[in-house]
Amino acid sequence: MPFDITTTGEFSASHQLRLYDGTLEPLHGHNWRIKLTVSADRLDAIGVVMDFHELARLLDAIVGPMHNRHLNDLPPFLAMNPSAENVALHIAQSLRLPDRARLHSVEVWETSENSAIWRA
Amino acid sequence: MPFDITTTGEFSASHQLRLYDGTLEPLHGHNWRIKLTVSADRLDAIGVVMDFHELARLLDAIVGPMHNRHLNDLPPFLAMNPSAENVALHIAQSLRLPDRARLHSVEVWETSENSAIWRA
Amino acid sequence: MPFDITTTGEFSASHQLRLYDGTLEPLHGHNWRIKLTVSADRLDAIGVVMDFHELARLLDAIVGPMHNRHLNDLPPFLAMNPSAENVALHIAQSLRLPDRARLHSVEVWETSENSAIWRA
Repeated sequence: MPFDITTTGEFSASHQLRLYDGTLEPLHGHNWRIKLTVSADRLDAIGVVMDFHELARLLDAIVGPMHNRHLNDLPPFLAMNPSAENVALHIAQSLRLPDRARLHSVEVWETSENSAIWRA
Repeated sequence: MPFDITTTGEFSASHQLRLYDGTLEPLHGHNWRIKLTVSADRLDAIGVVMDFHELARLLDAIVGPMHNRHLNDLPPFLAMNPSAENVALHIAQSLRLPDRARLHSVEVWETSENSAIWRA
Repeated sequence: MPFDITTTGEFSASHQLRLYDGTLEPLHGHNWRIKLTVSADRLDAIGVVMDFHELARLLDAIVGPMHNRHLNDLPPFLAMNPSAENVALHIAQSLRLPDRARLHSVEVWETSENSAIWRA
């Protein structure tokens, strides 16, 4: 699949991982940043994988409900820890792409230094 | 192919995509940014894939003619829309590498939020 | 292997490559930046590949001894040129990960424009 496009999104949210001994880490938050990458075998009639703005809207629809929230309180994270890895997994599982594009990867930065990547 | 090197380039140019209904989107421009990645199976006699400066010169020779121009007026884009995807394709098709290096990918950012990637 | 995590590190060091004709390039230095990526087939009991801080400590233990040094004087670079490619190789060869994580890649930037990548 030779072409990908990427778009980025951001949200601010607190979280608190449950640790191996069952205790919670200290409550804290991040400005989370997302890089979403989708692929297509070939370009469409106007020479694109899909419209950047449409892809950004699909991503915003998923990350918007996490903005200015405590991730532990949100449905995806009632059953799984709100780690960067699971935030990436949640975005990957929630995304509905048009037929011609396929999900390639979701990268989620907790800080400018650390990210988690889910790959299709 | 275990080693890659990357170099980056930039150019400023306007463009105007022809849309699905045949109309043109509004004329606008971007500071385009390019990340070029090339690969080699092994390092050469002095321990590099190839010289960074030489790779940067090869990239500049391709993107220089697009700087401060209207992409729609340039030969590569008379027959194809000047989308970020097609800018990446044009760079990939124009690059002539020394024998020992192979093209891995070309990523083209229209904005800091959105990029297109051509992968070999 | 669907999940990766990445961490970044930095060090400042001088170097001087031995060129094809046996001469040395002019002595100079860089703020080197590293992006280390490791993979796991599945997440662990608390939903992570491994702890970001632990991965950062493993990376710091390797890059710390290069900080504020002349790379040509350090053991890894007595037998090989201190190119960005070989700095990436040295980090890859020195890293000892916990069993459940595997090395995916090491990217080493000499400047904000140029990087070398070692891929597993």
